[in-house]
Amino acid sequence: MVETIQWTADGVVMIDQTVLPRETKFVTCRDYKEVAVAIKDMIIRGAPAIGVAAAMGVAIGVQKCDPAAWRAELETICDTLARTRPTAVNLFWAIDRMKRLALSLEGKPIEEIRARLIEEAVRVYEEDIAINKAIGANGAGLVPDGKRVLTHCNAGALATAGYGTALGVIRAAVEAGKQIAVYADETRPFLQGARLTAWELQQDGIDTKIITDNMAGHFLRAGKIGCVVVGADRIARNGDVANKIGTYSVAVLAKENGVPFYVAAPISTLDLTLTSGEQIPIEERPAAEVTHVFGVAVAPDGIGVENPAFDVTPNRYVTGIITEKGVATAPYEESLPRLAGM
Amino acid sequence: MVETIQWTADGVVMIDQTVLPRETKFVTCRDYKEVAVAIKDMIIRGAPAIGVAAAMGVAIGVQKCDPAAWRAELETICDTLARTRPTAVNLFWAIDRMKRLALSLEGKPIEEIRARLIEEAVRVYEEDIAINKAIGANGAGLVPDGKRVLTHCNAGALATAGYGTALGVIRAAVEAGKQIAVYADETRPFLQGARLTAWELQQDGIDTKIITDNMAGHFLRAGKIGCVVVGADRIARNGDVANKIGTYSVAVLAKENGVPFYVAAPISTLDLTLTSGEQIPIEERPAAEVTHVFGVAVAPDGIGVENPAFDVTPNRYVTGIITEKGVATAPYEESLPRLAGM
Repeated sequence: MVETIQWTADGVVMIDQTVLPRETKFVTCRDYKEVAVAIKDMIIRGAPAIGVAAAMGVAIGVQKCDPAAWRAELETICDTLARTRPTAVNLFWAIDRMKRLALSLEGKPIEEIRARLIEEAVRVYEEDIAINKAIGANGAGLVPDGKRVLTHCNAGALATAGYGTALGVIRAAVEAGKQIAVYADETRPFLQGARLTAWELQQDGIDTKIITDNMAGHFLRAGKIGCVVVGADRIARNGDVANKIGTYSVAVLAKENGVPFYVAAPISTLDLTLTSGEQIPIEERPAAEVTHVFGVAVAPDGIGVENPAFDVTPNRYVTGIITEKGVATAPYEESLPRLAGM
Repeated sequence: MVETIQWTADGVVMIDQTVLPRETKFVTCRDYKEVAVAIKDMIIRGAPAIGVAAAMGVAIGVQKCDPAAWRAELETICDTLARTRPTAVNLFWAIDRMKRLALSLEGKPIEEIRARLIEEAVRVYEEDIAINKAIGANGAGLVPDGKRVLTHCNAGALATAGYGTALGVIRAAVEAGKQIAVYADETRPFLQGARLTAWELQQDGIDTKIITDNMAGHFLRAGKIGCVVVGADRIARNGDVANKIGTYSVAVLAKENGVPFYVAAPISTLDLTLTSGEQIPIEERPAAEVTHVFGVAVAPDGIGVENPAFDVTPNRYVTGIITEKGVATAPYEESLPRLAGM
């Protein structure tokens, strides 16, 4: 499996997710501004991967800052990274974690601060993989044998430091010996399902069929799908889930057809400060993502477009939230804070 | 408005719907085999337009057949046209209508048979426009003022001889002075919404925004949509509706959010021989429609694909079926045969 993101001596190296699977191209970000652009332009995407990128972005920023003014520059670095994408809370979680560490080291030599920030960013990366394995272990038993699993967008190795959240659950179920096949929603407009999930699972030899987003309901009704597993970008205290646009529709269609709908996400995706999903900011992305596919126009010039990148799935559609600490079920106001230890 | 299909001295002229709106190209079919290919390859598509094309296909076939063997050739012509696409019943309805007329003329001079078949095909075309205007008139009052109408696929002028069924309802509501704006689902994989509906409505100056199919649920939940209006490819006696893949999902999401879901279709789309939608054959189209967009690959080589072109919406999700004879509501087993006069 190709590395999604790595800390190297040259900088932060990311596989370019805007061109996969047509091209396997790596981008090296040599300063925090390049990391911010990579997040904003979706060279790297997926809530946990964005968190790792942000942590590495803070670390690389402080490597190059003026030692005499690092406190002020840290603010600029964190603000720049925080302004890239509004929905995934892992971004803010990772920035806060790095910032708190840096501030706790005030008074130490800059070399020590720099070294500790690199260590911490690499720790965020390594922890993420371990968390995903734990999510997989906690979720594998929930996946019915002998039917297809439906997933939306890409909550796989490419959306994380590795292994994946939703795809981690699928991988763990396969490793446990279950007969698992997958339907991957193509996930317009950015096509994360057709381009990224299909590519990842194909490399793992997991039987995967891509379907257009509007086919999911048809196959749910046809009884071909044993469960749905998706990732999340932010989960409110009440269990409302912000995730890739289209997740809400899949959740409603799953419930309508009696199919379990699971969300797989690390505890860092919880935002317990929000009482409901209605408070989660939803990013609006450029119209060209909808009107063009790899630069090819698919709509008339000048047509109006809406392009919300996420939607909110109310908790009543969510069968369970699979985290590294266990599986939360309703009432989420109780189960989520308990799992988070808060 | 550009003509979707026309009978001309040169042959049956169609606008090529596979390349719109990137190119405005016309195709002339000079024999029935070319008409069959045009239907199969979706140069012309949309249930009523397919019906018109099939009628013209029978007419052009008989123009060129061996006068001594026209009865046998008529069978071949009708069989060839009938084997193009399985779901839209208008195809079979139009072929039957033309065949019945031809057989009723047995013994007449071939010139008369030929002339009468041309007249009949042109009548099918003209009736279709009149029917769509009547559907529009019957449906306009159902469209709430001041909200957006959501439509899926293209049930517009391009799907008919002109004016459209679902888009006919929208056009009639606009003509009646209502403030109507439209959300057009892009309708993967063939992109009828982004390419055709958006293009048609843009030419009419009707405020239209395209959204990806997976956004419809989000906007239904957000309260931005006053009603849904779609077309149909075949309607069973009990009111189950086969229409473009994704229609079922939109219908479920509309019901979940208390938004009326209307189907606009001519009586010729009813198939009263079927007791339920489960009996409607669903066409499976080539995988390349999903894996490629205008020839550009959007998925890894060799990935599995499913591509059902239609789905079935159970009658319980259908608020009303708008026909040229009036609006049918549940119980459809009673209202549909009554409207059809059968």
